[in-house]
Amino acid sequence: MHQNPVQPLIDQLSALPGIGQKSAERLAYFFLSLPQADVGRFTETLTHIRRHIRYCERCFNLSLSQYCSICEDTSREANVLCVVAQPKDIGAIERMRQFQGRYHVLGGLISPLDGIHPELLRINELQRRLSEEPVKEIILAINPTVEGDATILYLSSVLRQYSVTLSQLAYGLPMGANIDYTDEITLRLAFDGRNPIQGAPQ
Amino acid sequence: MHQNPVQPLIDQLSALPGIGQKSAERLAYFFLSLPQADVGRFTETLTHIRRHIRYCERCFNLSLSQYCSICEDTSREANVLCVVAQPKDIGAIERMRQFQGRYHVLGGLISPLDGIHPELLRINELQRRLSEEPVKEIILAINPTVEGDATILYLSSVLRQYSVTLSQLAYGLPMGANIDYTDEITLRLAFDGRNPIQGAPQ
Repeated sequence: MHQNPVQPLIDQLSALPGIGQKSAERLAYFFLSLPQADVGRFTETLTHIRRHIRYCERCFNLSLSQYCSICEDTSREANVLCVVAQPKDIGAIERMRQFQGRYHVLGGLISPLDGIHPELLRINELQRRLSEEPVKEIILAINPTVEGDATILYLSSVLRQYSVTLSQLAYGLPMGANIDYTDEITLRLAFDGRNPIQGAPQ
Repeated sequence: MHQNPVQPLIDQLSALPGIGQKSAERLAYFFLSLPQADVGRFTETLTHIRRHIRYCERCFNLSLSQYCSICEDTSREANVLCVVAQPKDIGAIERMRQFQGRYHVLGGLISPLDGIHPELLRINELQRRLSEEPVKEIILAINPTVEGDATILYLSSVLRQYSVTLSQLAYGLPMGANIDYTDEITLRLAFDGRNPIQGAPQ
C-alpha cells in the first residue's frame, strides 16, 4: 500500500485529545496550505511555551518565569486569596475582571477513586502562605462536583485554625458544571453570592 | 488583565479549522502536559513535512520527492489512470486496496462561482500524459456534486479525441444505508443503475 507522505503528521495529530482521524487529516492538509513562515511561527510558539512553562513558585499558576504575572503585580490585593483546582480556572476568573486578589492553585481535587488524596494537593503550600502572607479572606472557587465538595470539606477543616474568612462560590452555578466553561456573568454572580462555610471561623 | 502565558499558543490553535476557543485551550494544555521530547517530535514532523512537501511532477499527488511513491512504483499498472480532484482522495482509494493503476490529481473541480475555471485545473497536464504514457482506461473518481458533474462533463468532451475508455464511479446506495432515509436523487440513480442479480432469472 502507498505510504501517504503526510501520514506521520496525520498520525500525530490524531493522537491529540478530541481530534479524530478526519479532523487530523483536515488539520494536516491545512498546515500544508499555510505559508512556511506561519507554520514556523506556530512550532516556535509551541516549542517556546512548552520549554519555558513552569509553575509560579508562590501560587502554582502557570508561568514563564519564577513568579506569575499576577503574583508579580503589586496592585493586586495580598489579603484575599482565591483557591482554584487548576491554572485554567484562573483564566475564567480573570476574564470576569472583578477579582483583585491573588490565587492559589491546588493542582487537582480530592478524588480517592482516582488516587488523588489530600496530600497530593498543594495544601501544605497554602498553609505556609497563610503563615507568611497577610491573608484575611480565602475564596474557594472549586467546581460544584462530588470531588469539589470533598475538597471544600477537607479544606474547611484544615483552615479552621487560621483566622481567615473562608467562603465558597454561591451555587448560582448549576450542579455538575465546570468553572472553566462558565460564562462571565454567572461566574460574577457566584462570586458576589459567596457564602460563609458552616463551622469555619467567621 | 492578567496575560495567560499560554494565550499565544491558544490563539494560534484556535485559528485552525474546526478548532474553537475551548478545543484550543484543551489542546494547548494537553501539549503542555506532554514531555518536551514528544512536543519536539511533533514540531519536527510538522516542520519537515511542510518544508519538503511538493507536488509529484507526473501525477500532482503530494510527495516529498520529485515523483510520488505511486509513480515510482513500477509494479503499478501504467495503462489505467484514476483522475481525482485532490491528493486526499488518493488516500481513500488506496485504503480500498484494490486499484492497481496510477493517478492524476486535477487540483480542484470546475466551479465558476468560486472562480475555478477549467484552465485552472491540471487538464493540459492530463492530456500531455495521455500522449506520452500507454494509458488505455481513465476512471473519473470525482465527487457526485454540481461541481463534480460539471468537471466530468467537461473532461468527457476534452478526452473524446483520445482512444481511451472513460468511466466514472457508480452512483447508488452507500453500504449500510437505509432506503427510508436516502434522498430522492440517490435513490433514483440507484434505480437507474440497477444491476442484474447473478443466477436469478432475467
